[in-house]
Amino acid sequence: MQNLKISSGLMSKFFEIYKPLKIENPNGDIFRVLRNDEKSFDGFGEAYFSSVHQNSIKAWKMHNKMIMNLVVPIGQVGFVFTDGAEFESIVIGELNYLRLVVQPGIWFGFKGISKNQSLILNIANILHSDGEVDRKEVNSFSFEWSEL
Amino acid sequence: MQNLKISSGLMSKFFEIYKPLKIENPNGDIFRVLRNDEKSFDGFGEAYFSSVHQNSIKAWKMHNKMIMNLVVPIGQVGFVFTDGAEFESIVIGELNYLRLVVQPGIWFGFKGISKNQSLILNIANILHSDGEVDRKEVNSFSFEWSEL
Repeated sequence: MQNLKISSGLMSKFFEIYKPLKIENPNGDIFRVLRNDEKSFDGFGEAYFSSVHQNSIKAWKMHNKMIMNLVVPIGQVGFVFTDGAEFESIVIGELNYLRLVVQPGIWFGFKGISKNQSLILNIANILHSDGEVDRKEVNSFSFEWSEL
Repeated sequence: MQNLKISSGLMSKFFEIYKPLKIENPNGDIFRVLRNDEKSFDGFGEAYFSSVHQNSIKAWKMHNKMIMNLVVPIGQVGFVFTDGAEFESIVIGELNYLRLVVQPGIWFGFKGISKNQSLILNIANILHSDGEVDRKEVNSFSFEWSEL
């Protein structure tokens, strides 16, 4: 397969990490995001970009239905996942181009790491709907964002 | 609808231009790419990024089956379409965030315009396959790339 599952953590029930193929080209590289023949593909609802400035934190959200496919083609972004007790974090971006598949039912947040603005692409299996998103204030969980 | 069709040119049979919603946010903007409830949505095959350096030209290709949805979230890129006689061009990117829907059967090429590397996202209705792509050398058509 074109993608390699390279890791699973304590909360592997909720997220998986894949390494999409990157094809180098002197005029500019090509890098895959997602294909409909991958096992982890679960339908296409919507694709949207989120940009995040250095040290800006967007947290916390939990989807109740949406499966997210997250890639960071520009910059570096730290993602944090928690069930309220345990935390897992990963930094992805240009320097380590990976795709996170995030199942519903886990709290997550993210922080811009690179000096320049970072860009996140989410390919979601359903359309965005405020009704299926829970939100908490950033200080609801005691994660040390400065460690990212 | 969330997208506005804002223009159609001489070759409007082959491409359409939409303006996806952009939501401004002090921590970083959110901008839509494509939703499965849009009339122009024709299935999900594959999503991939292409980066292109300033003044680099990638031309010419023609898809025989693939419908492309092209956005440029970073930088500025000039796209050129031709049937071999007529040419149409458009520059899209951060400064004018638009989505091009390109039908099969038209030759196209593109050039990086912005000083920094530009990033193109293609959401295609089918998987990429070399068998459905025709290619020509960049000088096969007499387009004045310096005009872009």
